[in-house]
Amino acid sequence: MPAVAVSVDIVLLTLRAGRLCVLVIQRAGEPFRGSWALPGGFVGPDEDLDTSALRQLAEETGVTTAGHLEQLRTYGCPQRDPRGRVVSVAYLALLPNLPQPTTGRDGPRARWWPVGDLDSADGPTLAFDHPQIVVDGVERARSKLEYTPLAAAFCEEPFTLADLRRVYEAAWGVALDPPNFRRKVLSTPGFVVAVGQRASPRGGGRPAELYRRGAATALYPPLLRRTV
Amino acid sequence: MPAVAVSVDIVLLTLRAGRLCVLVIQRAGEPFRGSWALPGGFVGPDEDLDTSALRQLAEETGVTTAGHLEQLRTYGCPQRDPRGRVVSVAYLALLPNLPQPTTGRDGPRARWWPVGDLDSADGPTLAFDHPQIVVDGVERARSKLEYTPLAAAFCEEPFTLADLRRVYEAAWGVALDPPNFRRKVLSTPGFVVAVGQRASPRGGGRPAELYRRGAATALYPPLLRRTV
Repeated sequence: MPAVAVSVDIVLLTLRAGRLCVLVIQRAGEPFRGSWALPGGFVGPDEDLDTSALRQLAEETGVTTAGHLEQLRTYGCPQRDPRGRVVSVAYLALLPNLPQPTTGRDGPRARWWPVGDLDSADGPTLAFDHPQIVVDGVERARSKLEYTPLAAAFCEEPFTLADLRRVYEAAWGVALDPPNFRRKVLSTPGFVVAVGQRASPRGGGRPAELYRRGAATALYPPLLRRTV
Repeated sequence: MPAVAVSVDIVLLTLRAGRLCVLVIQRAGEPFRGSWALPGGFVGPDEDLDTSALRQLAEETGVTTAGHLEQLRTYGCPQRDPRGRVVSVAYLALLPNLPQPTTGRDGPRARWWPVGDLDSADGPTLAFDHPQIVVDGVERARSKLEYTPLAAAFCEEPFTLADLRRVYEAAWGVALDPPNFRRKVLSTPGFVVAVGQRASPRGGGRPAELYRRGAATALYPPLLRRTV
């Protein structure tokens, strides 16, 4: 049994100011000290993979809200870590809009970066193969928005259909037609459930109806990127 | 860096006599000697995960045709292997109908089992957590048939639309309406491509048109289980 190290890395996405953002931490140790990277670390000897992902997220970023968590993919290129063979099980997590994370006295610096600013003049290039992991995580989220009620995991309850639409618009980088979007969302029973209240009035129109997440697991009809 | 062992396990699916089948091997060594299990084994020190999956499949079953190969999920429950901590990266592979695999003099016995016979009076219960891995692999395939041209990976080229329909029928356990199925398949350009020939005449009707796999990566409209 050749021994390798197994780690988890978490792509935690949220929506901030209408932009899709990923949580990154500034590495306090080598390798890549001072660089930005995904939160994560080595799996404990008796620790399940999912448990490890939740623990590391809490320890490194203070984020403990459950939200949505799923395995993304496992990355095992022999050269991906200068310390030796490290196979990383990557997770995708989604949470409603959160403030900038608090950082403990000795903890690493953590912050949200807009996904579109990474690897550009406006943002850092992440360490290791984390740029690819972010690309894969964002594509998984974009794709699952088509067929599942995942978008609601980005919304703090109760939310309006406009809040939900802004998730799609931010993730896909498109503008959606509000009446058409409303009709499609409401045609899947249990995608969202009306809570029987309306939002506080804003502007001149009628206050928007409020919803919470429903029990549906698939959208029918799907909301396909190519048809919006 | 706590050391663990990393293995790959492969859920290789095909269609045989109209039934969805998975390739299993009879274990030649401990643990679970003599039990049936998925093909797989430990990842080499300098071996990429995908490479390892292809190598182990070839070594244990003689299957070298590329076909479709994708990562399924990584299984890391601390108690999943009696030898110690083994994290397994599972793969899903699909191939057109193949004969029973040949087995080398010292190789393990390999054979196809209908997925529906596993864990029943007609078939074995697989070793380790492989029953769960098969369930997850089959569900991944069933689900991807809805949105992707994956069904064509089960068909030897050239194939008829009836061959393709039988993939859906076997995987989903349903009977599909041929004209309806044909209309939906042909409405995604590049799902299948007509090769300009017809199959040898069988029975009284007009010989069926022959197709090969196309370049499409997504089905539009999708072929949804709940609407068939």
